[in-house]
Amino acid sequence: MGVYDTFTIRYQFTAGSQNEAEATARNISLEQTAELPESAVPAELLKYTGVVSKVSQTGDLRWECSITYPAETAGGELTQFLNVLFGNISLKPGIRILSLEPGKLAGLFPGPNFGISGIRELTGVSNRALSCTALKPMGAGTTVLSKQAFEFASGGLDIIKDDHGLANQSMASFEERVRACTEAVKKGCDKSGKRTLYLPNVTGDSSSLLKRAEFARKHGADGVLLAPQITGLAEMAQLTKTVPDLPVMAHPAFSGPYTIHQNSGFEPAFYYGFLWKILGADAIIYPNTGGRFSFSPETCAAINGMCRHHHPGVGKAFPVPGGGISRESIPAWIETYGRETIFLIGGSLYQHPGGLKTAAEEFQVQLKANA
Amino acid sequence: MGVYDTFTIRYQFTAGSQNEAEATARNISLEQTAELPESAVPAELLKYTGVVSKVSQTGDLRWECSITYPAETAGGELTQFLNVLFGNISLKPGIRILSLEPGKLAGLFPGPNFGISGIRELTGVSNRALSCTALKPMGAGTTVLSKQAFEFASGGLDIIKDDHGLANQSMASFEERVRACTEAVKKGCDKSGKRTLYLPNVTGDSSSLLKRAEFARKHGADGVLLAPQITGLAEMAQLTKTVPDLPVMAHPAFSGPYTIHQNSGFEPAFYYGFLWKILGADAIIYPNTGGRFSFSPETCAAINGMCRHHHPGVGKAFPVPGGGISRESIPAWIETYGRETIFLIGGSLYQHPGGLKTAAEEFQVQLKANA
Repeated sequence: MGVYDTFTIRYQFTAGSQNEAEATARNISLEQTAELPESAVPAELLKYTGVVSKVSQTGDLRWECSITYPAETAGGELTQFLNVLFGNISLKPGIRILSLEPGKLAGLFPGPNFGISGIRELTGVSNRALSCTALKPMGAGTTVLSKQAFEFASGGLDIIKDDHGLANQSMASFEERVRACTEAVKKGCDKSGKRTLYLPNVTGDSSSLLKRAEFARKHGADGVLLAPQITGLAEMAQLTKTVPDLPVMAHPAFSGPYTIHQNSGFEPAFYYGFLWKILGADAIIYPNTGGRFSFSPETCAAINGMCRHHHPGVGKAFPVPGGGISRESIPAWIETYGRETIFLIGGSLYQHPGGLKTAAEEFQVQLKANA
Repeated sequence: MGVYDTFTIRYQFTAGSQNEAEATARNISLEQTAELPESAVPAELLKYTGVVSKVSQTGDLRWECSITYPAETAGGELTQFLNVLFGNISLKPGIRILSLEPGKLAGLFPGPNFGISGIRELTGVSNRALSCTALKPMGAGTTVLSKQAFEFASGGLDIIKDDHGLANQSMASFEERVRACTEAVKKGCDKSGKRTLYLPNVTGDSSSLLKRAEFARKHGADGVLLAPQITGLAEMAQLTKTVPDLPVMAHPAFSGPYTIHQNSGFEPAFYYGFLWKILGADAIIYPNTGGRFSFSPETCAAINGMCRHHHPGVGKAFPVPGGGISRESIPAWIETYGRETIFLIGGSLYQHPGGLKTAAEEFQVQLKANA
């Protein structure tokens, strides 16, 4: 079994000594594969239980290890890959996934169809950060939402998405909303003289989401919004294969437990910036620091860095910090995060005394002034 | 808006005073609906942002509240219900979901098609706890796995499932495995003179899992195993509607982060025993106490209780404690958990010096002796 027939996961975990760390690492590899004590695994099948390497202490009681698994453990499908990645060990406290070298599995992951350059091309903006807002609140009718879309587009905003809570409620059902908002955005663009993308929320069960994405494409939407931890992570990859001509913006709803606990789950930069990217997200919303969420500035910087890193065969995705950004703080955030960023602002634009068009115009001025 | 047009979620969260608790509760309801500060929500849409009630202190810095939402926030679909339940607040530390009164949403949830009585009927066992084991390890070929199935069935085991790591790997591809194991179980049953159910693992992306379930049904499997937190929770409901004639055993792989952290995520009894049940699980595997997982005896008892409680319009599901049960400890576990339980034992059966058939026979003897 050569190195090209494998993939490698790096873990962080709790242990009191080198011996305990070695044993824990081995137990992780067994738990994720044979799910039997080592002594009960037939000798000829031990090769499927992974190989532990690079066990090292990184902090008080914290250790790391790498485990290299045969590619065949994932059986050529994303759901079984997720199971090997984090299935049973998700139930054990104190284990965190740090990184993945896909190795032989590289071909399994669709990666973003558009990425940073593809989204830039759609917006026609090559040299500055992009603006994004959400149509809201839940409960508003199609007329209200499409009027918002028109005003934001008139003001030159780069990207307008549905709020992730707009699904198919009767107040603004999906198809009606998409028809009205694509139309409204077009009219707004005629006024502004620039492009604005509209991304409706297609989150739904597997059959609904593909139907919605097809409808969105057919009716002139420019991309879609999806909450992959609600639909199932593999469904995002399915979507990017079935409807490859729409960029996907991924929303972190329902994903918090995987990333907000410091010593378990997934390293946020790996989860949002790498795992979601290789599963097909072109732009990745994450809960920004400084607002109502809990990530540190360092965590957000790491997510940004991972999204933007050109991973061979995968490319780059746009990081989309959301939450905690006010109109006034845009210049400071641009200075901190740089131009390879989509800034998502909701509440603060809605609270602008001059209305949504003015709010959008001022947002664009800030982005251009800080290009 | 009458009470029948709503559903109510009960939360636990952190706060330092009654005032702070009231404010946090209101912020939860806004975060899950409008996703705007209250002042930015148009007056006529405030009705969609939920109504907070019963704010009470339950411990040091810990509070609880109920929030009643209009049913229309969920828009008649499970994915949007999950979003209202835990979408954005999943990203905030210290908030835990305790319970749900489905109210108007009751019809949205399929509930188990079989439940405890349906599974008892399939097994032909009415008066004692049931036995369950898993075919394993990953890497074993179809011949090995089907031989295991034959031996377990010959020994009279009640339920044999695939290990949740058996997907569609080349060593024992799904269709080949299902054909061989259903056949082997039939032969084993001829020997034992009793029924044994075989539940292959259908976990996969949405299209694979339905195809696999159909194949399983067509080729004589008696039910299926599914890891809903890998497929997406709503896909389990989809499965129980599309293939209603096979009971579903749900596996907790990838679900740990939602339940293992004490002050956030979901109360385990609610998550496994209620949420998974209303989403269609007939039998629910959870990580048992006393073994390699971390739940307390009280948590496991609460999961058992919730699974077995007859919720109106939903019924009961079988709790399936897995992990930490050895052959020797079966009588003690039966005494603790009672007969409305499916006991899942893997490793300890495989380590029986007398082989799998003998291990199964002894398991059955224990179950009958402690009926």
